[in-house]
Amino acid sequence: MPAISKKGLDMPQSPIRKLAPYAEKAYAEGKTVYHLNIGQPDIKTPEIALDAVKIHSLDILAYTRSEGSDDYRQKIAGYYKKNDIHVSKDDIIVTTGGSEALLFAFGSIMDIDDEIIIPEPFYANYNGFSTASGVNIVPVISKIEDNFALPAIEEFEKLITPKTKAILICNPGNPTGYLYSKEEIKKLAAIVKKHDLFLIADEVYREFVYDGIEHYSIMQEESIQENAIMIDSVSKRYSMCGARIGCLVSKNKEVIATALKFAQARLSPPTLAQIASEAALNTPQSYFDEVKAEYVSRRNTLIEELEKIEGVKVAKPKGAFYCVAELPVKNADDFAQWLLEHFVVNGETVMVAPAAGFYSTPGVGLNQIRIAYVLNENSLRKAVNILKEALKVYPN
Amino acid sequence: MPAISKKGLDMPQSPIRKLAPYAEKAYAEGKTVYHLNIGQPDIKTPEIALDAVKIHSLDILAYTRSEGSDDYRQKIAGYYKKNDIHVSKDDIIVTTGGSEALLFAFGSIMDIDDEIIIPEPFYANYNGFSTASGVNIVPVISKIEDNFALPAIEEFEKLITPKTKAILICNPGNPTGYLYSKEEIKKLAAIVKKHDLFLIADEVYREFVYDGIEHYSIMQEESIQENAIMIDSVSKRYSMCGARIGCLVSKNKEVIATALKFAQARLSPPTLAQIASEAALNTPQSYFDEVKAEYVSRRNTLIEELEKIEGVKVAKPKGAFYCVAELPVKNADDFAQWLLEHFVVNGETVMVAPAAGFYSTPGVGLNQIRIAYVLNENSLRKAVNILKEALKVYPN
Repeated sequence: MPAISKKGLDMPQSPIRKLAPYAEKAYAEGKTVYHLNIGQPDIKTPEIALDAVKIHSLDILAYTRSEGSDDYRQKIAGYYKKNDIHVSKDDIIVTTGGSEALLFAFGSIMDIDDEIIIPEPFYANYNGFSTASGVNIVPVISKIEDNFALPAIEEFEKLITPKTKAILICNPGNPTGYLYSKEEIKKLAAIVKKHDLFLIADEVYREFVYDGIEHYSIMQEESIQENAIMIDSVSKRYSMCGARIGCLVSKNKEVIATALKFAQARLSPPTLAQIASEAALNTPQSYFDEVKAEYVSRRNTLIEELEKIEGVKVAKPKGAFYCVAELPVKNADDFAQWLLEHFVVNGETVMVAPAAGFYSTPGVGLNQIRIAYVLNENSLRKAVNILKEALKVYPN
Repeated sequence: MPAISKKGLDMPQSPIRKLAPYAEKAYAEGKTVYHLNIGQPDIKTPEIALDAVKIHSLDILAYTRSEGSDDYRQKIAGYYKKNDIHVSKDDIIVTTGGSEALLFAFGSIMDIDDEIIIPEPFYANYNGFSTASGVNIVPVISKIEDNFALPAIEEFEKLITPKTKAILICNPGNPTGYLYSKEEIKKLAAIVKKHDLFLIADEVYREFVYDGIEHYSIMQEESIQENAIMIDSVSKRYSMCGARIGCLVSKNKEVIATALKFAQARLSPPTLAQIASEAALNTPQSYFDEVKAEYVSRRNTLIEELEKIEGVKVAKPKGAFYCVAELPVKNADDFAQWLLEHFVVNGETVMVAPAAGFYSTPGVGLNQIRIAYVLNENSLRKAVNILKEALKVYPN
């Protein structure tokens, strides 16, 4: 039998997938499972986006341009302008989700065995994209004690080698909900400028920023126009994860020309989803105001309830809809599995994402979980209560 | 300024893209351009597929499973059964176009600097996927004189090294329209079995097979169940290139488990397009009969007209909707550009794809072009007439 590649063997499995069979077993046993484990919001997609595909007048579902249709890119540039990000349609390549934008960025700027520095914990799929691209993640550790703030500049500089090509941040962050301040972005700008690196920012949660703070994009930092690559997506913004539309944005013309070659090889991003995504840009501000109010209230409830549990440490998120919590358990992986297999309150249990999968340093984050507050408040309260009761009896 | 990767610099540009500025110039000058250069059919998408997205009842455009929805994969397995290919839904991973299926296949079975043997000329984007995956294409030359038949077994065996991991064919072929016979597939099966290689077959043109011949899939060859990986797509079958839905099919459980990890990293294939693609499976046979009759008649006209031109050599395609023609010119790249820039018949010109981009051996195919017969017969006749008149006056 021919052999699987080393790359294929090295590809990480999603930290959630490992638990999937236990979730299925729980369903089979008739249990209700509260899903705090995934970033699939329960928020409705704007009707304007869903309706746009209902009234399409296509008779051939044809390719669009590889970089996305001109109209759509023009409108995306308009959206950014309202967010004080000044780019033209030529600085934008429409991609199949933020995922593909990351793959294009990695391919355009890194070769085999090159290194990318990422503050950890980080979005678990960065591991997969790195393995697929043959590059190595060098983590710089951010700590729950510091609310996951940007590590000191010196910590980054210690890690820079001749193989370092980029720093990648997620802002606001999955899984921490941490929002980088303008000062922190300026610090990163100074490092990448000094060491001639790219700065990639995954800003897909840009709209989800709380407590009156403004999001500061790397694209607003003019000194690093040639270094900055922004990754974006409609998935969370309009609760249309299934559209699979994102984009890569850069003022660096070589980056765009190179990413375009990757885009041409795969022909075009999905056409129907571009129709929905273009229409989504007309979503009224009231939609975001409501969604934001909903997330803030969920977050407050979640943090308040978690803080009541003895032995639980939690970093208060300022954006996105995740938080990382430290539990009084040795191994959150085992605990998550035990919850699904052996614990119920009134026939209900809860599924959480063990946080170890969000770290690339082995042995770190073993007692942490990521919680996605994508459920309504009532469900959230019940779910946290299950956690609380579970921790009382868990045979650690 | 930070540097682009070697991989990024090496990424090939589509052979057609280089001509795009000249086509735009031709439009700007008010010329009509017949596009024989791209595989975007003018055939209408089945209404049943287009209507399915018009009546969707989603209120959240959510992720599907990473491997595609259970229902859809079940129905795909049903489609294959009708084609005498016996697989279950668990042997199928739904992908974002055939492109992504190829990337997953390459990643699952090949590491950096591994080699894949491909009969050339081949689909130009195989170059891009190979570069993106860091693997090397080793071409085995098929010749226009032989109608692009499979090269002799010995030609393959000469090329096999310890780094060879797979043989890739496109059947029926883009750009040649060549259809491999059952005997040829059996020959390939014997080679991959003997040398413990994978056999990847891109069978996206399966429905487009002419002259009463039956398509024989590598999945029908039971002796190579563990070696065979089939790539498929809805793009051409239902003229829905913009859906971006394909699949990877294999009975090799390790291949599927590995490809699934790549699929999980990018979360899910596009949801709306899966709705359209699932509905497309109910397309009545009459649709294919009509489309096939149309392509056969186009092909016959095209070949007949091309053969009338002095100095033109053409391989008669038995499938797909492309053919490769040899022209009495030194460099088809220059000729294609000259057509767009300097030649018109009644204000009309023609755009062709220079075939050199479909070869990886430098200097081969320089006097060949690929013609896609995706235009109606009247336009085809006019387009070939333009070619004929052009060749009379072209300053070679």
